[in-house]
Parts: sequence; structure tokens; C-alpha cells
Amino acid sequence: MTIYPVIMCGGSGTRLWPVSTSRTPKQFVNMVSGESLFRQTVRRVAQADDGLSLADPVIISNARYLGLVEQQLADAGVTPLAILLEPCARNTAAVAAVAAEFISRIDPDGLVLLLPADHFIGNPSAFRKSVADAVEVAQVGRIVTFGISPSGPETGFGYIKAGEAIGASAFIVDAFREKPDQATALSYLADGSYSWNAGIFLFPASLMQAELHAHAPDVMEGAAAALDATDTNATVLHLNEMLFAQIRSISIDYAVMEHTQKAAVVGPISCAWSDVGTWPAFGELHLEAKETGPILIDSKNCIVHTDDNTLVAALGVEDLVIAVHDGAVLVMPKSRAQDVKLVIEALKARGRSDLL
Amino acid sequence: MTIYPVIMCGGSGTRLWPVSTSRTPKQFVNMVSGESLFRQTVRRVAQADDGLSLADPVIISNARYLGLVEQQLADAGVTPLAILLEPCARNTAAVAAVAAEFISRIDPDGLVLLLPADHFIGNPSAFRKSVADAVEVAQVGRIVTFGISPSGPETGFGYIKAGEAIGASAFIVDAFREKPDQATALSYLADGSYSWNAGIFLFPASLMQAELHAHAPDVMEGAAAALDATDTNATVLHLNEMLFAQIRSISIDYAVMEHTQKAAVVGPISCAWSDVGTWPAFGELHLEAKETGPILIDSKNCIVHTDDNTLVAALGVEDLVIAVHDGAVLVMPKSRAQDVKLVIEALKARGRSDLL
Repeated sequence: MTIYPVIMCGGSGTRLWPVSTSRTPKQFVNMVSGESLFRQTVRRVAQADDGLSLADPVIISNARYLGLVEQQLADAGVTPLAILLEPCARNTAAVAAVAAEFISRIDPDGLVLLLPADHFIGNPSAFRKSVADAVEVAQVGRIVTFGISPSGPETGFGYIKAGEAIGASAFIVDAFREKPDQATALSYLADGSYSWNAGIFLFPASLMQAELHAHAPDVMEGAAAALDATDTNATVLHLNEMLFAQIRSISIDYAVMEHTQKAAVVGPISCAWSDVGTWPAFGELHLEAKETGPILIDSKNCIVHTDDNTLVAALGVEDLVIAVHDGAVLVMPKSRAQDVKLVIEALKARGRSDLL
Repeated sequence: MTIYPVIMCGGSGTRLWPVSTSRTPKQFVNMVSGESLFRQTVRRVAQADDGLSLADPVIISNARYLGLVEQQLADAGVTPLAILLEPCARNTAAVAAVAAEFISRIDPDGLVLLLPADHFIGNPSAFRKSVADAVEVAQVGRIVTFGISPSGPETGFGYIKAGEAIGASAFIVDAFREKPDQATALSYLADGSYSWNAGIFLFPASLMQAELHAHAPDVMEGAAAALDATDTNATVLHLNEMLFAQIRSISIDYAVMEHTQKAAVVGPISCAWSDVGTWPAFGELHLEAKETGPILIDSKNCIVHTDDNTLVAALGVEDLVIAVHDGAVLVMPKSRAQDVKLVIEALKARGRSDLL
């Protein structure tokens, strides 16, 4: 029984503008470590001496990022099993359907480890340990999610309520709760049985096909049709544009996870996880930044990110995000981190696609 | 009787960092108009058809700015009478003494119009009109200052109290008041007889020599000795380094104006004057900035300055200065505009003279 990592890296994280742009979204941007989140993800599922054996990765991305994907795979010294290119974004249910269909055609007994490339995991061995835990549950017929120990009442994440234990650190899922309000999030923390949904899944390819057929048959059929019409002889597959574009855009959480009886969760994992979704989250990963960092005078709790060519000086400011990248400067309070899209819209209206 | 404009442009306006640096201080930086304050000053005292006749200008600057001075004079199409270069900064009394000594050697009856190059004057004809008014007072033996109609209780300026009238809009000076506190500044505004000291002077060269001999003889003798030891055959004069460096560093206000009985003031002038000393003052001159300006969303009362290659987006911020120039970004509340020196010190401590 083989485990096939399928790395999703087609998104564009606009909330991290100006560092993340549609040309080079955050998963491909070099972090403080000098390595992008995509390369970190690739390395996280590569061969290691810990007993967990994974196949070469399948990459699912947007066609426009093929150059970045190939370059960064080469930099990481990794040969992919395949690179599947979406002509347009169709959300995670379409990706899961394509992944399940693609792997089951190669290996009907294969397990799929579906994971986003734009998250940070500070402790890869803790993560791999929980993948090993998840394999035992997945192979007896479960779609396994990975629960992260919540570090606060975040309202931007999905929460998983763990039910009956079915393994060492594996549980039946009682419920998925998407993006609760603050009061609800606080009650989840107090309850103790909720963890954050990391958006990572391990499942038998055939089980995901069956569950999609049951709960979102149009998505499953659309994905299969798109693969049927795609030339699959090369390593780089351009998914059929017309057929893929027709697939309904829905997340795997809404399409399957909230309906299936087969959901399990492992964890909660303490693997120093972050979705790096907003500037405050990004800033936390920068705490151990370069010595030649910004000049901060009488300033508190600021997140300052700058490129190598620019010095930032902040004087007498508090709780600000100051981000400099590639000809653009963003200044906002941390509390407005979810609203970077307003800047993106203004840039579009001004025709400044060169900055997006 | 000839009037010799003497333009002081040796200072470095660090409060406007990062736009103003010691390599290119603010008086040489291009403003929104595309013209530097130095070039504007040169143009303000050039020939015009308004009956005021001025000689070619004498430039007093720091030796390190010779290249900028020559280039910008050439751009303005102006030939200087002379360029006097200070080996180091010795404040305005030394400059006034050198100017008086230099002009009286050329023309014992000459009047000197001593003016800083780093101020903005929005209405040059109003200014030239008041110079014409000042000539009548200066030539009968007065050191004439120029009073600016105060637009608020500024604490960073010197104030001039006008006394007895001695001409159409000329008065004996009752008192000079340096940088009052807020309450005192408010009382000056209420009083109505105070104006801001623009730091511009018109005087007979011989009178300034006499007053310096009376109130600061060491400065006057030092300046004369420095000129004696300087090769004055060329248009560009390098003031003798050893002798100039020995002159006491004191402002002309403290050295002479607060003691002399010969002070007069013309005005108050409404010539849209600004000393462009701090970012808020600089920002006001940018109100009619380029259309491709910054993106401001839910932001109020901010001053944003950026170079042509950088876009600034501000989201949900208020009363901030955001300045981008040549590899440096400064973010601070307007209220901290006087403290930019703290950033300059931090840059020096870090050895980042490339940014200063």
C-alpha cells in the first residue's frame, strides 16, 4: 500500500500583498530561511529515515506557476511523479476529485496525502509522526483530517470536534465548524475537544471517489471527464481547459467533509503549524529575522517585512504592519490584516497589474 | 548701490530623512514641481521685470555639495558671481561674516541679501516686493529682517516683535524671541505685533561688519582671516580650512540680531512661506501631488511621499508620515516629526552611512 503526497499550490494569497502577488504567490516566496513554503512542503514529504515511506509527490498547481514549480522542485532536488496543471481555480473539491481519480488510475489501492503548500510547519517530524498515525486509520476506510492544537480563539479557521477514539490519537469526527464567531471560538477552546482544521487529508483514493460520488457527484464526474480528455502521457499534465472549467467551485469541506460518515481526525498535533494567511501570522514566523532588520524606535508590536534592498525605520508606532516588497509598501494596523483585498481591488482599478 | 544675493545652501535637513540625506540635503532634492528649493531660490533672486535689480548670486555651501551646486546652477541657466565653500559647518554668524567681508571687498557700498536655500516661497513676487521695501530701510543703515504672517502658534520658529514704524511696511524691531513654548506662542498670535522670522536678511555689508565687530568680534575677525588666507582669484573659493574651522559656531540671531540697535523688520509678508523643516511642513507642499499617488483606504491626514518606483498603500491609518526614498522607508506619527534625528543616530550606530 503506497502513500501518494499530492501538493496543492495553485492559490494566490492576496492577504500577504505586497510580498505575495499573483505572479509569485506566497507559497513560492522565499521565507527568512531562504526556502519557500512550497519547497518546505516538498521536503516535508520526501524520503526520511523515520519509517514513513511516501511516493514521489504529485503537484497540482495553476498552469501559470509551472515555471516556479519546476524551478523550485529542481532546487529541492525532487523529481515529481506528475505535475497536474489547472487552467483556472476551482477550489479544493475539484482538486481532491482530480487527485483521487488520478491516483486510483495508477494504483487502485493507493492512499492520497492531500496537503496545501502554503502552510508553515515548524516541526516536520511531529507532522510525519501523525501521518503515520493517520495511515492506520485511513487504510481501514477513513478520510483522515489533521487537527492542530488551537493556540487561541481564531475566527478565521475551521474547527474539528473530536468524538469517539478509534486509535492512539485518532478519533471519529463529531462535527466540522467553519469560521466561528469570537464567542463560539472561545466556547470551543473551553470545551477542549475542538482542534483547528489544518486542511490536510489522508484517504484511500477509492474512498474519496465514492464519497464524492455520494455527496457531490457532479464534481467527481467533472473531474473524471477532465482527466479523460487530458493527455496523461507526459509528466506535466495540462488538465482539459473546457471540462475542468465546468466543475463547480466548492471546498472539499463543504462538498464532502460536512456530510461524510467516514471522517476521522488525528491529533491534536503540536507541530508549530501556521497557515501564514495574514500579515500577523506571517510576522510571527519572522521573529527570528535577520540581524540587519528594521530600525524600531519607541515602537511596539509591529510586524515589519522588507526586502534586502530597503531599510525600514519606524518611530513611535504601535501594532502596525509595514511590508515592503518589489516596488510596493503596505502600511496598516494588524487589525486590518483581513482587508488587504481592498488594496488589491484599488490596484486593479488603477490598472497596476504589474504589482499584483 | 548694488544688491548682492548670498544664498546659503550648506546645511543638511535630517528631519526630512530619508528624502533629505547628507549626500543630497533637502535644498537640492527635486520637489513635486521638478525643481529643487535651491533652484527655486536662485530663480527667485534672478533678473525680472519688476524694477528690483539684483547682482548675480554668491553661493555659500559646504565643499561636499560643489557638484550639486554647479549642476543645479547650470540647469537654472545662472552664472554665479562666486561660490564660497565652507570646509565644515559653522552656523549662520560665520556665513554672515564671510558674506559681509567678501562683498565689502568687492563693493564697499554693497547691500547683502542673505537668504537660506531650503525654504519654500509660494509667491515670489510678494517676496521681491518686500525686498524692494527693505532696500529703502537697509540703505539708511538697518539690518532688515523679513517677517512672515504667522499661520499658527508654531513653537519651532523664531518670532519678531515689530515696534515703531519706519517705512510703508517697515518697523524697528522691538525684540527677537526664539522658539517659544506653546502658551507663549499663542500669546504672540493674540498680541498681533509678532511675525515669524524667515531667516532672511538685507543689510549693508559694512554695517554687518561693524555690528559683528561690536557684538561678536571673534567671529568677524575669524571670517576676515579665513578670507585673507583663501585664494580668491577663482569663481569657486575654498575657504581656508584651518582658519574657518576655528570660527565660533553661533547663529546670526544670537550673535548679532538680539543685541544690535539697528534691526528692522519688513512685513508681515504673505508669500506662502514654509521652512519645509519637518515632514508635516513638507507634506503640505505635496497637496497637489501626482495623480499616480499612493493608495489610501480608510486613512486620514497622512503624509505620504514616495519615489517614482514605489507604490505606497495605506490602509486604516491616521496622522502618519510614510516616506519612501532611495532604499529607505520611514513610518512615524506626524507628532514625532521632530524626532527623525533618533533614526539618523540609529543608522549611524549601525554604520549605514550609505543611507545618510
